[in-house]
Parts: sequence; C-alpha cells; structure tokens
Amino acid sequence: MPKRSARDAATVAIRLDHVDRPSAMAAIAAGVADAGGRLRTMATVRRSTTAGAGGEPLAEVELEVEGLSEERLIEVLEGVQDVTAVRLTRALERIFGKRIIVIGGGAQVAQVALGAVSEADRHNLRGERISVDTIALVGEAEIAAAVRAVADLPRARLLVLAGSIMGGDISTAADEIRALGIRIISLNMVGSITEHVDLVVSDPVQAGTMAVMAIADTAAFDLDRQRGRRL
Amino acid sequence: MPKRSARDAATVAIRLDHVDRPSAMAAIAAGVADAGGRLRTMATVRRSTTAGAGGEPLAEVELEVEGLSEERLIEVLEGVQDVTAVRLTRALERIFGKRIIVIGGGAQVAQVALGAVSEADRHNLRGERISVDTIALVGEAEIAAAVRAVADLPRARLLVLAGSIMGGDISTAADEIRALGIRIISLNMVGSITEHVDLVVSDPVQAGTMAVMAIADTAAFDLDRQRGRRL
Repeated sequence: MPKRSARDAATVAIRLDHVDRPSAMAAIAAGVADAGGRLRTMATVRRSTTAGAGGEPLAEVELEVEGLSEERLIEVLEGVQDVTAVRLTRALERIFGKRIIVIGGGAQVAQVALGAVSEADRHNLRGERISVDTIALVGEAEIAAAVRAVADLPRARLLVLAGSIMGGDISTAADEIRALGIRIISLNMVGSITEHVDLVVSDPVQAGTMAVMAIADTAAFDLDRQRGRRL
Repeated sequence: MPKRSARDAATVAIRLDHVDRPSAMAAIAAGVADAGGRLRTMATVRRSTTAGAGGEPLAEVELEVEGLSEERLIEVLEGVQDVTAVRLTRALERIFGKRIIVIGGGAQVAQVALGAVSEADRHNLRGERISVDTIALVGEAEIAAAVRAVADLPRARLLVLAGSIMGGDISTAADEIRALGIRIISLNMVGSITEHVDLVVSDPVQAGTMAVMAIADTAAFDLDRQRGRRL
C-alpha cells in the first residue's frame, strides 16, 4: 500500500476515562463513527487498580480522531454512558513529530543517537519536530522483529541500523519495510544489510546527523539522490 | 488514578487493512467487544492514496487486544465486512519495552541520550527491553506541553529533563505527571524544576545511566530510596 503521512488530515486529540469493560471502547468507536469521525489512534495509557465512583475499574485512554471538531468530539464522547471524564489534549504528532528509529547494539548505537539528537536539536529550533527513538538490541531474530515492528510505530519515518554485523532475516525485514515507504540508513558493516538500505554511512555520528537531514523539511538533503551510495 | 502497567495482562497484536470509512473501526471495536476482548491500543500506520480492490481507499491499522486468543481475534476480525486483510504481529511492548523519554535542548540532551542508550544496551543484553526516546525542544510552553504529553505515550515510565534552565509551567507539568506515576530525573540546572522531580543529577551521562537503572528489573537501583537527592 503506498505510504501516506498521517499528517495529511487534521486530527483532534482527547484524553478520557471510561469504565474498563469490553463494551466501552465499542460504544466510543460507534459514537465517533456515527458522528462521521474516523478513529486514527487509541492508546490505553493507564488502568486503575481501584474502582471508580461507580464501583468498577476505570481505564484512561488517549484518542486521535479525524473529521470532527473538538467541540463535536467532546459532545459525542460525553454522550457515551461508560465515559466518566473527557479532556482535550494535543495530538502526539504536534508534540513529538516525525520519528527516527535507531536499532542496534554496542558503542555505535549510542553514537548514532548522539548525532541524531544533536542534529534534531538544530532543526527543531527552526520549527521542525523530530524525535529520535533508540532501542539497543542484539541477535538476528530480535533485530529483525524490531525492524518489522518499525512499520507499526506511529510517525516512524526513517530507520538507522547501527552495529557491526547484520544480514539474513534482518535484510529481508529491511526490504519489507522499505517497500512500505520507510527509509533506512545503515552503518558500514559486515553482512548483507548494506545491500538492502538506502544509504550506507561509516561514521555513526554522521549517520545520525544524515538521518535527521533526510526527513527534515528544514534541510536541503535529499536521500533519494544519494540512494545506494556508501560514505 | 493509580498507575498500573499495561503489561499486567497479556495482549495479542494484529495488523489489518480495512476500507477507510468511519464505520469500519466501529465495526472492528464492536466485534472485539462482542467476543469479550478489550481493545487496548489502535494505531493507523498508513492510509492508501489509491483505492483498494473494491474501489475504496484502505487504511492499515495495528491493534492490541486483551482477553482474546490469537485464533479467536483473527476469527473475529475476518468476520468484519470492511476488513480486507489480517496478519499477526508482535505487541510493541514485547519489541520496544519500557520507554525512557528525554526532553530538553542543547548539548545536554544528546549526552543524556548517550548515557541512557549505552546503559540500556547493557541491560537489554540481559533480557530487559528498554528504549530511549528523545525530543530536543526549547521554550517553556513547548517543553511543558511535551512533559504533559509523556503521560499519553504508551509504555513511558520515566522522564529525564535535560537543559540549563527550566521552571514555571514546566514544574507544574512535572507535578502533574508524577501524580500519574511517571518518575522524573532532571539535570542540575537553574529554575524551580529541581524542586519538582524525584532526583537531580549534575552529569548528563550519569543522569541517562541512572534513568535506565531506575526502571530496569535487572538493576538494584531503587529511585524511591534516593528521592529528593542531588548528585
């Protein structure tokens, strides 16, 4: 399926408490749909261990809905029986922005993070919103699973692979997520992975820096023009 | 509401494509609820620009559901008319684990990330799953909004504030999210923030390291025993 940013349409973000039973989310989703809204994200941010006022446990949920105004969404949610509280919040897109995901292990993964965070700081000062999310992992199966899961992360745009040897199923996973529109920069390393990415960079700090430049609207760097290069 | 981990109950993760109309998510949520499952997270990971086989645009969605087996969830979703494809995936909790969020600007934010990523690498080698997510930001309003939004991030456990001056509404936001059970480590800095956190650490690399130790089950460090200290 061709990639399209979740930013393309305006979303309204809301936080609510609901009685924690299976039918609650169904009623919320039905309310949103009946009003013509599209539920885009939903995350249960916490569940209470103690009962709410009505004697039943509560869950706290963050929703992002497209196609409804804030006022209309609040009105809809306040009309759902299991919803006990509603408050506006800000869509995570506007707070944390585009995400670069760094996966790998050892000394390199921290150096990539260092380069990417420093460069994101510079672009965010000029109005960008780019976050850098890092998971340190070793092992082919673990890294391949994490690479595939990047496709499930909201707002993930680019992956940096930081290690000394990667290949096999990691390369297969890299091909899969590139087909979904996620770009990959890898360090120069042993293994087949360098044949399955958009750009290979030897220096980890520079790899992190270039990752940010590649997704920043405030930078002139075009990854498509560098595709297949090794630096 | 008292904090309780989303890990407390097993969830099944699934990715699906559905026809992108408002009623689709309502039908999915109703199906899950009717079968006795609780929808815990939902993220629209991409939307197609082109029409699917039936002539209508598709959306691709990641779901996490509690209280149903994989087999039963697949059966339920395959029975929803607007769902065009279903495939199992792995819950993001199992891949990316607990999250440390680093917020701040300048040289310090990258140094905190460096310390945290290096330490997470060491713990993840021993079976932990800890990710380090960083957003470089400046400005009281921007940072306060990001601090509040940490409460909405799935799997966020601990926040590190990295900068040279923070206070005002940032301190208010810090109190709010600590009340929700999220712990905060801050660098030693100018402003009231150091009075509104669990621990103050002067060295940014050590602050990142201690953040990981504080949430790692593989570490003996207990933040509660250090509460209010300044290092």
